[in-house]
Amino acid sequence: MPGLFIVFEGGDGAGKSTQSRLLVDWLRSQGREVVETRQPGGTKVGNMIRHILLDPATGAMDPKTEALLYAADKAQHIAEVIRPALDAGKVVVSDRFIDSMLAYQGAGRVLPDELLAEIAEVTAGGLTPDLTILLDLDPAAGIAALTSRDRLEQEGLEFHQRVRAGYARLVAAAPSRYVVIAARQPVAEIAAQIQAAVQPLL
Amino acid sequence: MPGLFIVFEGGDGAGKSTQSRLLVDWLRSQGREVVETRQPGGTKVGNMIRHILLDPATGAMDPKTEALLYAADKAQHIAEVIRPALDAGKVVVSDRFIDSMLAYQGAGRVLPDELLAEIAEVTAGGLTPDLTILLDLDPAAGIAALTSRDRLEQEGLEFHQRVRAGYARLVAAAPSRYVVIAARQPVAEIAAQIQAAVQPLL
Repeated sequence: MPGLFIVFEGGDGAGKSTQSRLLVDWLRSQGREVVETRQPGGTKVGNMIRHILLDPATGAMDPKTEALLYAADKAQHIAEVIRPALDAGKVVVSDRFIDSMLAYQGAGRVLPDELLAEIAEVTAGGLTPDLTILLDLDPAAGIAALTSRDRLEQEGLEFHQRVRAGYARLVAAAPSRYVVIAARQPVAEIAAQIQAAVQPLL
Repeated sequence: MPGLFIVFEGGDGAGKSTQSRLLVDWLRSQGREVVETRQPGGTKVGNMIRHILLDPATGAMDPKTEALLYAADKAQHIAEVIRPALDAGKVVVSDRFIDSMLAYQGAGRVLPDELLAEIAEVTAGGLTPDLTILLDLDPAAGIAALTSRDRLEQEGLEFHQRVRAGYARLVAAAPSRYVVIAARQPVAEIAAQIQAAVQPLL
């Protein structure tokens, strides 16, 4: 059975972890072996990087440094978790992947899109998700739904609106690789739409 | 007065820190403001990255992850230390810079040279040292001179010979940007050769 690589993307508070969990349960009920993971983090090295990235105590960081740290986390994650699981025929469900880097650093920060695309290409080394599920939400609603706050979430509403626009550009550039789902629907309804999108890939 | 960017490169044990210190003292005696720095490290974020890179407890790391972490350190270092100092007309003397990444990861590890060159280009963003002083030493002699051991230094002699060959290729590609000095000479003699190479740039 070939491996399958599914990624959840979207703004904070869109319900990615809830839906990721439901999809994993459903995939297991279909008899598939599933590896759940998230970015940043998911490896020992990645967790050390995650600490640098998200701890408010880190202080001022150059945007290029930030992008390269996200890239380092992803490279380790691909080598240590994703590639071996896919090679073993498992389904990998990842909460965020390279699109997050492109949307957050590219749309939200000051780096040129070409530079980020170059970093993303180096990082992915040819690995592309089979399906990316974008949970789309008006950032004003997403921020209201947050209960915890980290460095990213301290950014203002305008930042999150640029992130959303960044995701929209990624979808427009390769629509067949995405399914876009409105996040303000009942949880079970969203889960059903996700299952319908994943089913043909199994 | 325009800024001046001088980098020391070479294998471990070649005397980079001794000569760096002597050059800094001499530059100050010539009335120049000098910023001394080293890589990896030199910034708060960089020191956190340095910890991940050099602590044997980190465990197995993908070579691309390692290269991207070195790149993240360098990007922060350029933004926070080097660019501001050069813009203020100071002399920056750095113990290692991007050539270390190219020589150590490229010659010593498994990444393709083109991938590393791409990472290096993204990282430097157009910043090139005015002069790179390569202290060249037979690795067998360099390793014998080491008193402490970190993760890199645990690599074998063959690794360090590939590093040396990597440096030689960098010099061959842009000889006017380098001065290569045999490291097995009296300290004062090496210092005099370095001063002679730096003098015309002041």
